[in-house]
Amino acid sequence: MYRMIGSMLLSLAVALAIGPGLIAYLKKLHFGQTIYELGPSHQQKQGTPVMGGLMMAAGILLSSLIFHPLPWKGGWDLMIPMLLVAFLSMAVGFADDYIKAVRKRHDGLNPWQKIAGQVVVAVGFSVYCYYHPMIGSSIRVPFVGTEWDLGFFYIPVMALTVIFIVNSSNLQDGLDGLLGTVTTVSSAGWLVICVLIMTVPALAGITDDANAGTAGVFAAAMTGACIGFLRYNRYPAKTFMGDTGSMLLGGGTVAMAMVLRLPLLLILTFFTPIMSSVSVIMQRYYFKATHGKRIFLMSPVHHHFEKKGYSETQIVSMYAGITMILSLIAVLSIAG
Amino acid sequence: MYRMIGSMLLSLAVALAIGPGLIAYLKKLHFGQTIYELGPSHQQKQGTPVMGGLMMAAGILLSSLIFHPLPWKGGWDLMIPMLLVAFLSMAVGFADDYIKAVRKRHDGLNPWQKIAGQVVVAVGFSVYCYYHPMIGSSIRVPFVGTEWDLGFFYIPVMALTVIFIVNSSNLQDGLDGLLGTVTTVSSAGWLVICVLIMTVPALAGITDDANAGTAGVFAAAMTGACIGFLRYNRYPAKTFMGDTGSMLLGGGTVAMAMVLRLPLLLILTFFTPIMSSVSVIMQRYYFKATHGKRIFLMSPVHHHFEKKGYSETQIVSMYAGITMILSLIAVLSIAG
Repeated sequence: MYRMIGSMLLSLAVALAIGPGLIAYLKKLHFGQTIYELGPSHQQKQGTPVMGGLMMAAGILLSSLIFHPLPWKGGWDLMIPMLLVAFLSMAVGFADDYIKAVRKRHDGLNPWQKIAGQVVVAVGFSVYCYYHPMIGSSIRVPFVGTEWDLGFFYIPVMALTVIFIVNSSNLQDGLDGLLGTVTTVSSAGWLVICVLIMTVPALAGITDDANAGTAGVFAAAMTGACIGFLRYNRYPAKTFMGDTGSMLLGGGTVAMAMVLRLPLLLILTFFTPIMSSVSVIMQRYYFKATHGKRIFLMSPVHHHFEKKGYSETQIVSMYAGITMILSLIAVLSIAG
Repeated sequence: MYRMIGSMLLSLAVALAIGPGLIAYLKKLHFGQTIYELGPSHQQKQGTPVMGGLMMAAGILLSSLIFHPLPWKGGWDLMIPMLLVAFLSMAVGFADDYIKAVRKRHDGLNPWQKIAGQVVVAVGFSVYCYYHPMIGSSIRVPFVGTEWDLGFFYIPVMALTVIFIVNSSNLQDGLDGLLGTVTTVSSAGWLVICVLIMTVPALAGITDDANAGTAGVFAAAMTGACIGFLRYNRYPAKTFMGDTGSMLLGGGTVAMAMVLRLPLLLILTFFTPIMSSVSVIMQRYYFKATHGKRIFLMSPVHHHFEKKGYSETQIVSMYAGITMILSLIAVLSIAG
């Protein structure tokens, strides 16, 4: 387990260390975020540099490469694809941020460009997992303890899952420290799940413990990176992670879940980002169906709570609490 | 593991449910806190009802009793003493709060009365553990994986530990949501440690898994209770836990650690409360030794950060991050 401790601490240290320099650099390049126009009264946030998510990227990359288990046991053929999902998802977000912040075009990438990039990543990774001997088309069903073989449907279902999770993560990133805090807690949950799979012999057969060893180092790196990033992102934020960061975290989270063959647990550990997506979808359809009525004062639902009078820090604390409860349930579901 | 999920959820529900009623009741009784006079500019907090910790007490008590493992296996002879440590520690805090808030006497219990109460609890529990066949005088040394037999010294050393932890917890409780958040994270860590001990056969010999089953239900109850309480205690707080709550949490935490024979892990999971104590002690001795100089602008050290210009929510987030990192290291140290 020393690898995981090392991964978490290095990633934390890297994010903390490069934070001030990165923020100064982003500011100098006039990377001030153009605040999404529909957000309630966040005008004072104009000028906060976006793309602070790059400090997490640096931490995750370094830790994952340095503390990766030795190659001959579930080696780079799992770690590299996981990193690719995280970093290619990030690249889509980065392109969007860059166009908005540097080119000063409000609209960023058009939606189809974003989706096209995500589809490539999602389908590519799903196909890879499908054919990988240590992953395959069966996913584990928590609580029940059985497996569910999706057969060829694994590919489209998982590809949609990747796209859905990456965008959910992106949608949740709207308040200082919100997604960072939620991902800290959920990544810690995934880390513990990996530890359980590695140490409990009865679980090793279900998900190979080499997968868990690889995903565990990655989860530890994500946890450390998020905590380091929060140093600069908590209210009042000195930097935002941007689409850069939110898509990195979404991509990393879904990749871990798939490598562990536990994508169903995302419903628990990543419940609040999923809720953000679902609230947007509900709002849109309800609005169309009723010709103008709204379920929430504003979607994603964290803006609804803001309009209701909750402060940013209160909402972050509430989401963190929910994520903590659900992540612990996820952990307990594995322990059987 | 369903018992632990149940314990966490019931405790959460109880704290959430009785919260509003309890706060209204405490307000009506004019239980407004008399803010500790040395705190920096917290005068606006005058009138916030103290003793909100009672809502956690209700959750912990109910969950521990209802979801306790069946008696014949490491049964009530572990759960009842743990509850006693938590609730008798709370009683000392409650007496203090009651005198301050209801009798409106600023000074509360005098220090010797407090210490006397704590000594009785601490020595009583240490003697009990010493003679209990499933605990005894050996404590486990994490990382190294060996045991350390304290012999008869177990009693004084552990008694001092109990007193130290309860007072550390009490000293950390000075900012909205601070101790509640830290204890949420540390209790979740203890819960995971219990799960590991229960499911990893190699660990069962070291600490009996019945101990872990009992402590796990208790840890789950504490986690749920803290998250529920934070609903009302996060900044801006509608109620404070008071000495009632802080001593309950301190007592509960140290009791779990001792039942698991892992008191050394308190240094990790309960690092920030311990730091609060240590900062007070350092400040006092340095002040005496130098005839008036100070290390910190103010102690406990969270007030130092406040004076440095950090907001309450920033300090809470920082302490939570530190506790998360250290609790994960504690978990990993057990997994070996």
